[in-house]
Amino acid sequence: MRSTIAIALTLFAATAVAQTDELVKHELATSRAYETLEVLTDDIGPRLSGSPGAAAAVTWALRTFQKWGIAADTEKVMVPHWVRGIETATLVSHRNQKMSLTALGGSVATPPHGLTADVVEVDSFDALKSADVKGRIVFYNVAMDMDLVRAHRSFDAYRQAVVFRGEGPSRAAEYGAVAVVIRSVASASLRTPHTGALRYDSKQPKIPAAALSLEDADLVHRLLDKGERVRMHLVLTPKTLPDAASANVIAEIRGSERPDEIVLVGAHLDSWDLATGAIDDGSGVAMVMETIRLLHEMHLQPKRTIRCVLFMNEENGLNGGRRYFAEHKNEKHVAAIESDSGAAAPIGFLTTLKGDAAADLGRQMQLHFETGSDTGADTSFLIEAGVPGFGFVPEPLHYFDYHHSAADTLDKIDPKELAQDSAAVAQLTWILANE
Amino acid sequence: MRSTIAIALTLFAATAVAQTDELVKHELATSRAYETLEVLTDDIGPRLSGSPGAAAAVTWALRTFQKWGIAADTEKVMVPHWVRGIETATLVSHRNQKMSLTALGGSVATPPHGLTADVVEVDSFDALKSADVKGRIVFYNVAMDMDLVRAHRSFDAYRQAVVFRGEGPSRAAEYGAVAVVIRSVASASLRTPHTGALRYDSKQPKIPAAALSLEDADLVHRLLDKGERVRMHLVLTPKTLPDAASANVIAEIRGSERPDEIVLVGAHLDSWDLATGAIDDGSGVAMVMETIRLLHEMHLQPKRTIRCVLFMNEENGLNGGRRYFAEHKNEKHVAAIESDSGAAAPIGFLTTLKGDAAADLGRQMQLHFETGSDTGADTSFLIEAGVPGFGFVPEPLHYFDYHHSAADTLDKIDPKELAQDSAAVAQLTWILANE
Repeated sequence: MRSTIAIALTLFAATAVAQTDELVKHELATSRAYETLEVLTDDIGPRLSGSPGAAAAVTWALRTFQKWGIAADTEKVMVPHWVRGIETATLVSHRNQKMSLTALGGSVATPPHGLTADVVEVDSFDALKSADVKGRIVFYNVAMDMDLVRAHRSFDAYRQAVVFRGEGPSRAAEYGAVAVVIRSVASASLRTPHTGALRYDSKQPKIPAAALSLEDADLVHRLLDKGERVRMHLVLTPKTLPDAASANVIAEIRGSERPDEIVLVGAHLDSWDLATGAIDDGSGVAMVMETIRLLHEMHLQPKRTIRCVLFMNEENGLNGGRRYFAEHKNEKHVAAIESDSGAAAPIGFLTTLKGDAAADLGRQMQLHFETGSDTGADTSFLIEAGVPGFGFVPEPLHYFDYHHSAADTLDKIDPKELAQDSAAVAQLTWILANE
Repeated sequence: MRSTIAIALTLFAATAVAQTDELVKHELATSRAYETLEVLTDDIGPRLSGSPGAAAAVTWALRTFQKWGIAADTEKVMVPHWVRGIETATLVSHRNQKMSLTALGGSVATPPHGLTADVVEVDSFDALKSADVKGRIVFYNVAMDMDLVRAHRSFDAYRQAVVFRGEGPSRAAEYGAVAVVIRSVASASLRTPHTGALRYDSKQPKIPAAALSLEDADLVHRLLDKGERVRMHLVLTPKTLPDAASANVIAEIRGSERPDEIVLVGAHLDSWDLATGAIDDGSGVAMVMETIRLLHEMHLQPKRTIRCVLFMNEENGLNGGRRYFAEHKNEKHVAAIESDSGAAAPIGFLTTLKGDAAADLGRQMQLHFETGSDTGADTSFLIEAGVPGFGFVPEPLHYFDYHHSAADTLDKIDPKELAQDSAAVAQLTWILANE
C-alpha cells in the first residue's frame, strides 16, 4: 500500500516539476543565503537564549523578512537565561597544568574560588556504582566512535557519546560526586572544548559540570592509567538569571488553493555563546529564510501555505519549539522540514515517511531520502503528533569538528554548498506545498 | 673536488656500517623515546624560560642521564623571564564579539584595563607608510602560503609570514601605532591562536602585540573589507620579570680515538607556555636523549666524542645557544646536529654540506639530504663559525597546525614515527662520530 502522500507525489504536475527545476537553477545562480548568514554571524554574532545577541537576531530576522516584502511576525517565548562566567581548571597534582575546558550549558557554579578534588574516570553509568566517586570529580571519558564518523554516521556517534553530557552530572551526583568533567563530544580538536546543554534531574543535587578538550581528556586519562592520583582545581562561575522574554520569528507565503494546510520549514535562531553559530544553526536559518526569499522573488505562489519558523532556544530548553506547538497544534501541518545539521554539501533528507513515499521524493529530487524518526528537535512536537517530518542532511563528516565550540564560525561554510543546500530545502518545500 | 668529510664518509668502515644497521634495528624495536617525551610533557608540562617548568626540566634531564649511567652536567644560562597574563579582546564596534588571541612572547602590557582603538589592516611593511596608523591598532593579516605548505615546504611558508610577528610591533610603533595584532602564523585553526617571540627595536616605543586566531583574523578582515569601522578593546597584562638563572644540560659519550673532536647533537628543553611543547621541542629532546641512551645501552663507543646538548631559551632569546658557543667555541666541533622540527615521519636532513658529501650520506642512510643554511637556531652560532650543520627534517605538513599553540601536546606524536626519527638522528650521529 502506498501512502496518500506517495500517490500525491506521483501526480505532481508537470508544470510544478518545471518550476522546481527553475527554482533550483535560480537559487544556484543568485543565492543570497551566504549574505544572510554573514550578517547573522559577523554582525550579530553569538546568540544564546536570553542574550542581547539573541534579541538582536529576532529583530534582524523580522526586519529582514519585512525588507524582502514577506509577511512576518514574532511569537513570544520565555527562555532560560544562563550566562557563562570564568572557567578554569588546573591539575594541582601535576604542576598545576592548565586544562582547556568550558562549562556545560546550564551548569551551576563552583564556589567562587573553586573546588579541589580527586578525579575518578568512568566510561559508563554502570561504572559509577563500583567507582568510589563520593567527594570526587567524575570524569566521563567516552569518545565519539571515529569509525562511525568516518563512515559518515557522525550523528549516530554523537548520540552515543552525548548522553554523558546530558545525564552525566545528575547520575554522578546521585553517587556523591562534587563535580563532573566530560570528554568533549567532538571529532577534532586543537585543544578545543565543546559545550552543550546538561539536564539536571530534580531529585539530585546540582553539581557543576564542564567539558575538557580531547587533549586534556587524554592527558588526565594517561595520568590515571599510570596509577597516579590526579587532583583538579575547578573554577566555574556561570549564572542562571531569571527567564527572559524572547521570540520565535514566523514568516509566511499564503497558499493559493489550500491556505489552511501548512508546510513548515524551520531552523533555530539561537546559538551557543562560544562562537557565532555558523553551522549550528546560522546556516539552517539562512537556508530556510532563503527558501522564502527565493519563492517570493520568483513570484511562485504555492497551493499550500509555506511557513518559515525561526525557533528560539533549541540549544538549551526547546521552549521555542514547545511554544510553537502549543500555539499551532490545531492548525493542519502537512509537513515539517527542519535544517539543523550544518551546511556541507547536500546529501538528502531524513524523513518519517516510509517506503515508496521517501523513495519517490529521492528520485524526483535526485537526493538521498532515508527513513528515520529524529528529523529535528524543534519540530519534534509536531512529528510526535503525526506530522510527516523531514530533516535536511548535509555531508556530516566534519560537523562535530566545530559543533558547540568556539570554532563554529563563518569560515567553515562554503558559499556554493550553502546555495546547494538552500536549493534542496527550497525544492522539497515547494514540492510538498504543491503535492 | 670532494670535501674531506665526503672522502672520509666513503671510507666509512664496513664494521661501522653493520653497527649503524644494528643501531637502527635496535632503536625501532626497543625505543624509549616516547616514554621520555611522555614524562617531559605530561609530568613536567610547559617550560618557558624562567618558569618552574623549565627549572624542573633541567633537573629532570640531568637526573635522567645520570640514571641511565651517562656523564652529564648543567651549564648556567641567564634567561629572560616573561610571564603571560590576562589576554582578552572584544570588537566594541561589533556587539563586543570576543576575539580568540594570545600575547606574543615578550610583549609589553596594555594599561591594566586595556586600550581601545580603531583597527587598520596591512599586508606588508610598505603599507604602513600610506595607512593612517597613528593612534591605531595595526593588524598584520598575512597568511601562511598554503600552496607551499601543501607542497611540503611549510618552513618556507613560515619564514615568509613570521617576519610580521618578529618585526611587526616595532615597525608599526615607528608610525605611531598603539598596539599590534597579527594573523597567527598557522596552517590550521579551531579558533586557535599561535604565540611566538617578537623582537622590539630599541629605537622605537614598545607597544603591546598579540596573535589572533585565523577565524578572528578572517572576521576582522571581512568587516574592514566591507568598509566598516572596526574598534577593538585589547587587554594584555604580561610581565617581564628580572632575568632568571637557568641552564643547558650537556651529556657526553667520550670518543675512543679522537675524544677532542666533538659531534654535537642538540635540541631545546624550553617550550612556549601555552602547551606542553610535545612537537616544539619535546620530541627533539626525546630524540637526542634517546640517541645517547641507545649508544650507551648498546655499548657502542664512538671514535669521536658525542655530546648531547639540551639548550635552554631557544624560544625567546637563544641565550642557551649563545652561552654554549661562548663557552665551547674553542673546542673542535666536527658537526652539529639539531632536531627542532617536530616528530612526524622522517624525511632526512638539511645540511650545510654541499654536493657529494650530502648525497653520500643520503645514499648511506636511505634518507633525503638537502643543502641549506638554516639547520637550527641553537647551533647557528657554531654553523656561522664554520662547523658543518645538520637539521633533522621530519614530514612538515602538519607542523604549523600545532606549533606555538595550546594544541602542541603529546597526542600529536606517533610513537612509531618518533622511534624512526630517533633512529635517524642516532644513525647520523654515529656515522659522523666514526667518519
